[in-house]
Amino acid sequence: MKRKKAYSDAPKGFHFSTAEAAIKKPGRKDLALIYSEVEANISGSFTTNMVKAAPVRIDIRKIKTGRGQAIIMNSGNANACTGRQGVSDANEMAGMVSKGLGIKPSLIYVASTGVIGARMPMERIKPALEELVSGVGDSSFEDVAAAIMTTDTFPKIVRKRIKVGDKIGTIAGICKGAGMICPHMATMLSFILTDIAVEKRTLDKALRTAVKKSFNRLTIDGDMSTNDTVLLMANGILGNPPVTEKDAAYLQFCKVLAELTAELSKMIATDGEGATKFVEIEVRGTRNDHEAERAALAVANSSLVKTAIYGHDANWGRIMAALGYSGVSFREEKVDIFFGKVKIVEKGLASGKDKQAGDVLKEKEVKILIDLHGGKASAKVFTCDLTEDYIRINAEYRT
Amino acid sequence: MKRKKAYSDAPKGFHFSTAEAAIKKPGRKDLALIYSEVEANISGSFTTNMVKAAPVRIDIRKIKTGRGQAIIMNSGNANACTGRQGVSDANEMAGMVSKGLGIKPSLIYVASTGVIGARMPMERIKPALEELVSGVGDSSFEDVAAAIMTTDTFPKIVRKRIKVGDKIGTIAGICKGAGMICPHMATMLSFILTDIAVEKRTLDKALRTAVKKSFNRLTIDGDMSTNDTVLLMANGILGNPPVTEKDAAYLQFCKVLAELTAELSKMIATDGEGATKFVEIEVRGTRNDHEAERAALAVANSSLVKTAIYGHDANWGRIMAALGYSGVSFREEKVDIFFGKVKIVEKGLASGKDKQAGDVLKEKEVKILIDLHGGKASAKVFTCDLTEDYIRINAEYRT
Repeated sequence: MKRKKAYSDAPKGFHFSTAEAAIKKPGRKDLALIYSEVEANISGSFTTNMVKAAPVRIDIRKIKTGRGQAIIMNSGNANACTGRQGVSDANEMAGMVSKGLGIKPSLIYVASTGVIGARMPMERIKPALEELVSGVGDSSFEDVAAAIMTTDTFPKIVRKRIKVGDKIGTIAGICKGAGMICPHMATMLSFILTDIAVEKRTLDKALRTAVKKSFNRLTIDGDMSTNDTVLLMANGILGNPPVTEKDAAYLQFCKVLAELTAELSKMIATDGEGATKFVEIEVRGTRNDHEAERAALAVANSSLVKTAIYGHDANWGRIMAALGYSGVSFREEKVDIFFGKVKIVEKGLASGKDKQAGDVLKEKEVKILIDLHGGKASAKVFTCDLTEDYIRINAEYRT
Repeated sequence: MKRKKAYSDAPKGFHFSTAEAAIKKPGRKDLALIYSEVEANISGSFTTNMVKAAPVRIDIRKIKTGRGQAIIMNSGNANACTGRQGVSDANEMAGMVSKGLGIKPSLIYVASTGVIGARMPMERIKPALEELVSGVGDSSFEDVAAAIMTTDTFPKIVRKRIKVGDKIGTIAGICKGAGMICPHMATMLSFILTDIAVEKRTLDKALRTAVKKSFNRLTIDGDMSTNDTVLLMANGILGNPPVTEKDAAYLQFCKVLAELTAELSKMIATDGEGATKFVEIEVRGTRNDHEAERAALAVANSSLVKTAIYGHDANWGRIMAALGYSGVSFREEKVDIFFGKVKIVEKGLASGKDKQAGDVLKEKEVKILIDLHGGKASAKVFTCDLTEDYIRINAEYRT
């Protein structure tokens, strides 16, 4: 198997391939493959939407074994709301890759993103799949990140090193986002690879913890997708004794994984459909994390807050209103709100610093801190502003 | 007291006044007064937002008496998040009207709409209040409807007749809406007047029932306001024996009131900020009303569904996704979806009629019917599409 030198900073033992199947339209690579030289431990997190795409249903079944060796993915068609035909199409895709690579179908995961409700154009996908299998090693992880883009404007990739005993392992992740993104599902598509050996249950726990504070605290438009999938593969090529929860390396692995997923989440928010800026909403001073998260998400999901940020208008009244309907209990007369370092609300009342706070909103990254002064818990969520371009992109998406 | 002939189709015994206080900016009447010749029974429904505007807090206290004689209202400033000063300002407004009209302050209700967090400009409001009181009878109910507009593009008024015994009574309502509108609060501002005598508890029940299926099934942008207020005054000038739940006239009164609030709600949806069309989402086939409402609201609140409708794109996959995250349980393979009379989804799958369904979306009024085939309950909700103009209006609202 070929392996290009340029890609040597990807985790060891993973190889990549991309091909053009012209699924939605011709002119770009829209099919991609991740292949591990050896069987890997695999953990996953999937949409909690009742309506699950065919590949999600298949992956949820396969992942119970905890083992995987390849992931095949496409953009341009979500293979959702396609009934039995959709499941059969996804299985056929995995089957072709299975034959081509000579590995069991149960080790091959499928992920799709794109339009819902249209049948997969198998007549174009099948020949492209052959090309994909024969080209393993010809593409980089970046190429895969580009192939899964839909309305994303840039490919999203993060790489980190982790010291495990006397060895240096690598963990790298890609994702795609842009729209139909709301927390409390796994979230959009993300594939994270590592050459570090990690015991299966430990891998599950690390992923669950990382997703909770990253992809699940990310909202673009409050719409939860049918296709959200996060897969984390650990192939152990590094040769370390498998990391377990008892090892010192475990905490380090969790920390780095959490940083990686947080960075990917921020990239998704930055690249939200039509977004002009990245917005972080932090709520402090609640009785527990759940309340802080709930209050922060209410603010982050408010169309009125997001349009005000877009318009550089420090309209904090809309934040107060969103907090008020979040379902979290607090005392209005205790609330402080900061835009960057500018205290715009003090004890529930205007500070009069609208001009300075408006200037903060002109930056590309905006941090809004809300202190409810009712406890010691806090949570951060990531989002973006809401602009005319979001409307344009989504009014014209299929046409 | 003067009373112009042209307004004789308003409920008897109510008189109106409007004035310019230049609260946000000069050039329009932004202060209005409804005055009843006699004390009336009054029922109310208010926002459930934790953050309540000063006038809402005052009204909630006063309405416990069940009696009222005047409502003073303004646009341009919500008097919300204004602390004790806000309550004191609202009380001062009621106090001035009390002196001017010679009625007890406890009979005077206050309602405000506009920007949150700014102090009321009392120096301009006070002289305008004097003008308002001295001008009672000079304005029509339509003038009041115009004075409470914010980003509304037309005043909203509905009038109906009801036969009570051998008499013909009148019921009329106005409202303002446009943005920051989401169900499960009373909703925006609406004032409904009738000259029919209705016993107080009966009036409460009729209003509660009507609001539940009209204002509470209306969503523009999912943002719940701090100021939502519905007040229903029955002054009994018609001279009928007060209607109670036992009377035949009660059902008729409820029916007409429900029609009136539904019509006002539809006007609000039609005039949603930036909207190009009115959208009705009906969900059928759930186990109970609550599930039907929940599923319909998830679809109605989806930014992706609303932008697709705006773009005349029959993107039913986004409806399936919204149903899937609504929290309502259903079988994907049983779902039917109609755009107007076009069946776009049959048993969870595409019918292929995208073109015909897209044509339905070109109409000014769009009805989407979703049948989950899982029970006998149903619910209708009202909304509008989401356009670039919504963004523009809300990015520039305060500037």
